[in-house]
Amino acid sequence: MHLGTDTVHYAWDRDLAPALELGAGTVELDLLDSGAGQFDATSTAGSLGSLDFDRVNPVTGPILVPGAEPGDAVLVRVLELAPASWGWSANIPGFGLLAEDFPEAAFVHSRIGEKEVELDFGPVLPALPMIGTLGVALPEAGPHPLLPPSRHGGNMDIRQLGAGSSVLLPVGVPGALLSLGDAHAAMGDGEICGTGVETSARAVIEIELVKDRPISGPILQTAPAARRTGAALVTTGVGPDLLAAAKDAARSLVDETVRRTGLSPVHAYILASLSADLVISEIVDLPNFVVSLHLPFEVLG
Amino acid sequence: MHLGTDTVHYAWDRDLAPALELGAGTVELDLLDSGAGQFDATSTAGSLGSLDFDRVNPVTGPILVPGAEPGDAVLVRVLELAPASWGWSANIPGFGLLAEDFPEAAFVHSRIGEKEVELDFGPVLPALPMIGTLGVALPEAGPHPLLPPSRHGGNMDIRQLGAGSSVLLPVGVPGALLSLGDAHAAMGDGEICGTGVETSARAVIEIELVKDRPISGPILQTAPAARRTGAALVTTGVGPDLLAAAKDAARSLVDETVRRTGLSPVHAYILASLSADLVISEIVDLPNFVVSLHLPFEVLG
Repeated sequence: MHLGTDTVHYAWDRDLAPALELGAGTVELDLLDSGAGQFDATSTAGSLGSLDFDRVNPVTGPILVPGAEPGDAVLVRVLELAPASWGWSANIPGFGLLAEDFPEAAFVHSRIGEKEVELDFGPVLPALPMIGTLGVALPEAGPHPLLPPSRHGGNMDIRQLGAGSSVLLPVGVPGALLSLGDAHAAMGDGEICGTGVETSARAVIEIELVKDRPISGPILQTAPAARRTGAALVTTGVGPDLLAAAKDAARSLVDETVRRTGLSPVHAYILASLSADLVISEIVDLPNFVVSLHLPFEVLG
Repeated sequence: MHLGTDTVHYAWDRDLAPALELGAGTVELDLLDSGAGQFDATSTAGSLGSLDFDRVNPVTGPILVPGAEPGDAVLVRVLELAPASWGWSANIPGFGLLAEDFPEAAFVHSRIGEKEVELDFGPVLPALPMIGTLGVALPEAGPHPLLPPSRHGGNMDIRQLGAGSSVLLPVGVPGALLSLGDAHAAMGDGEICGTGVETSARAVIEIELVKDRPISGPILQTAPAARRTGAALVTTGVGPDLLAAAKDAARSLVDETVRRTGLSPVHAYILASLSADLVISEIVDLPNFVVSLHLPFEVLG
């Protein structure tokens, strides 16, 4: 199974024709970078002025999951994620956490290796490839922009979503309509300037339909090998208010911990306070932020 | 040099008599737990009802640093931190991120070992001792409560502040008046229920006065050995709005990166986006939250 970049689309839309039907199993996808190929190794800060924002953050898909209904969840395992050898980052005027401090455009090229990412202005980062956008169609009709994440996933920019990690997404419409894109060779939690090391990539994912699994938002399991983190159960809160999103992530973690361990809710809550880490995964994809709460599996025994 | 629990106090106050004068060097301190000894191994959920909140979160000190003036900073290195063998955690009605969901009191006992913390309801956590409260007196006169953190530190509850880490604090008044307390044998970023594994402890710190070092808020350097993290430069934003606190932490990291590397501000900003992690360190000590931004030293070359 293979989906090429000819299936790229630029909105979440329950009425899109599926590019593929897949109830269970693996599929390989070619992912465009978040600039949809509008930049290349010759680009400069000036190139940002001609960026077509209608073609930003493309996703490959959608994949129809037969039998998926609202109230179910789709489990997506990232089996492989291979970024290209070139990446870009930018300060895009008007975008980013400190947009008012940095009004001038800046453009950065990166050389992406297997272990490291070399930035053109000097620093070398550990390569931590991840998928920025992975989601299912929203239940509300009509095209919805790809930039903001939602409770159905999308542009979550959770940096731990790399090879070996998985995400459980709440199905919004019959057939789910799963799409993904926006690979990064590296990114910090928060993605504060609005970009990671943006790159095209080849991804292999495995899909599984989980019937009767109502969840309030995306839930991840991160890979043991994830750098600067570890194997963890990760719940999320998505919305325009960071405090409310933190509460949503906390409630979801209490529910999941109770479900998996049989602990009482208040013990699950206290356990989270003692050992789960509260992270702002995404703070720039307005109007919605993503707060995530990471419980190391080691404390679940 | 030694400060015992007879020097414990219950407010930040620029007019407190110093317990010690120390311009540079090390001092050993006995720290009461955040309950100031009001709980012990016989305590139950019912014990929370008689908790005297005027004696919560005690700190040992203050230490006067001769020559310290506003515009300077005090660098505090945590050399040793040895928690006691017993700890407590609780759901305190009305307190915590999900206070409205958990109105009932709960009390948890822990056995604290060198490597692990055993909770009475089953889970075993890695021991990650840290200092919850470390700060200097506020410039404004009068007693100020110890619960909320401020730009001068205090109840920051940054879980990476353990042995081997250091913190730079902006001096608020002549002599600085440094105090600390609120040790935890383990805690998750955010401390969502309002407590970690609360314990008394013995701490050894080293103090250094850094003249003419104006900073907007606390800046940490974390230890290479810190579990689930690593050696990092950590800036902070403290205040009642998480988004504003995140911006403050980001601005402080840009400033520090420029200062240490000579990178341009926009490159420092992009570097943070690519490799620094945005964490909610404390979300319960109302009215102020602490957001921290962690840049691994490895990317600074």
